Amino acid sequence: MTVRVLGVDPGLTRCGVGIIDLAQGRAATLVEVGVIRTPPDLALERRLLIIGEQLDAIMNEFSPSAVALERVFAQHNLRTVMGTAQVSGVVLLAAARRGLAVGLHTPSEVKAAVTGYGSADKKQVAAMVARILRLDAPPEPADAADALALALCHAWRGIPSGIGGATSTTPAQQAWRAAERSGRKSEAAPRLDT
Amino acid sequence: MTVRVLGVDPGLTRCGVGIIDLAQGRAATLVEVGVIRTPPDLALERRLLIIGEQLDAIMNEFSPSAVALERVFAQHNLRTVMGTAQVSGVVLLAAARRGLAVGLHTPSEVKAAVTGYGSADKKQVAAMVARILRLDAPPEPADAADALALALCHAWRGIPSGIGGATSTTPAQQAWRAAERSGRKSEAAPRLDT
Repeated sequence: MTVRVLGVDPGLTRCGVGIIDLAQGRAATLVEVGVIRTPPDLALERRLLIIGEQLDAIMNEFSPSAVALERVFAQHNLRTVMGTAQVSGVVLLAAARRGLAVGLHTPSEVKAAVTGYGSADKKQVAAMVARILRLDAPPEPADAADALALALCHAWRGIPSGIGGATSTTPAQQAWRAAERSGRKSEAAPRLDT
Repeated sequence: MTVRVLGVDPGLTRCGVGIIDLAQGRAATLVEVGVIRTPPDLALERRLLIIGEQLDAIMNEFSPSAVALERVFAQHNLRTVMGTAQVSGVVLLAAARRGLAVGLHTPSEVKAAVTGYGSADKKQVAAMVARILRLDAPPEPADAADALALALCHAWRGIPSGIGGATSTTPAQQAWRAAERSGRKSEAAPRLDT
């Protein structure tokens, strides 16, 4: 069974979207990654409409089987958090209209899943996403990399036996080891908490 | 010219909706008032879907010419504010899909418009709404009364020579809005950057 997950890093100015496929016992693969941008001088409702229409187009084209979304907290970034929450409302609605469940994950859950370290910085997350998906370079901008990290986090949490079958290691650890075996160099080596 | 305004007091558990008609030189009249409720044990995306579908049905039935929405602040009610903001995203999207502009008003702007006093309590607002719309009793629950108060606030602010002859939009604001309306067709197609 292949799970196709759409990850969304919500934002009014830049909304990251990333889609991955994960089949049991196989490595995750990149399907699509990008950013939906809206002009800051446009009326709020027009900006949300652009994001809603782009999300609909992406869901129509790629038919994800699940959606992963960053859980927004009111405590952070008071200036932008309301816009971010409004975008997340639009994402949740677009998913529900297709009968898709939405998994909400906190930034530290996503970081821990992808790098093994809940306080990893954006560069480490992007570098690890590139490794896991065997990309030539980290996805840019950071919102796009974060969207892929969300999708990976959700896919790994959702598949009971994880990639590589049932083991005592976490998917992040397995991915890390696989990446180590592949012998690739990374500019920002993520840490593993044990 | 009659303006029909849909006011929405956003909330996940109770979302107040109220529609009023206001014709130049005439008293405001009640068209519809009610509350959209969603069960707290339902998944967030399902709750937003119910609200989105109910709003669509209301807009289809009553064809408002404008939408008024409470401006949500991250500073208040930290526990519920994210859900409220997500609902407001759904309201903004529903309006934009119909080409309707949305007026955002703070609670104190609404209280001041309806009662003349920016710190009025909910009971005073409901009583004044009943008086203005010549209702036998204050609308209940408070979310329904607040939605009507929002609609009244927006109608009075938006009609150049509104009730009482006073106007709160400047000629510059009116010119700006006209320009915005005529400029919609020339909006550049949104890009999906990769």
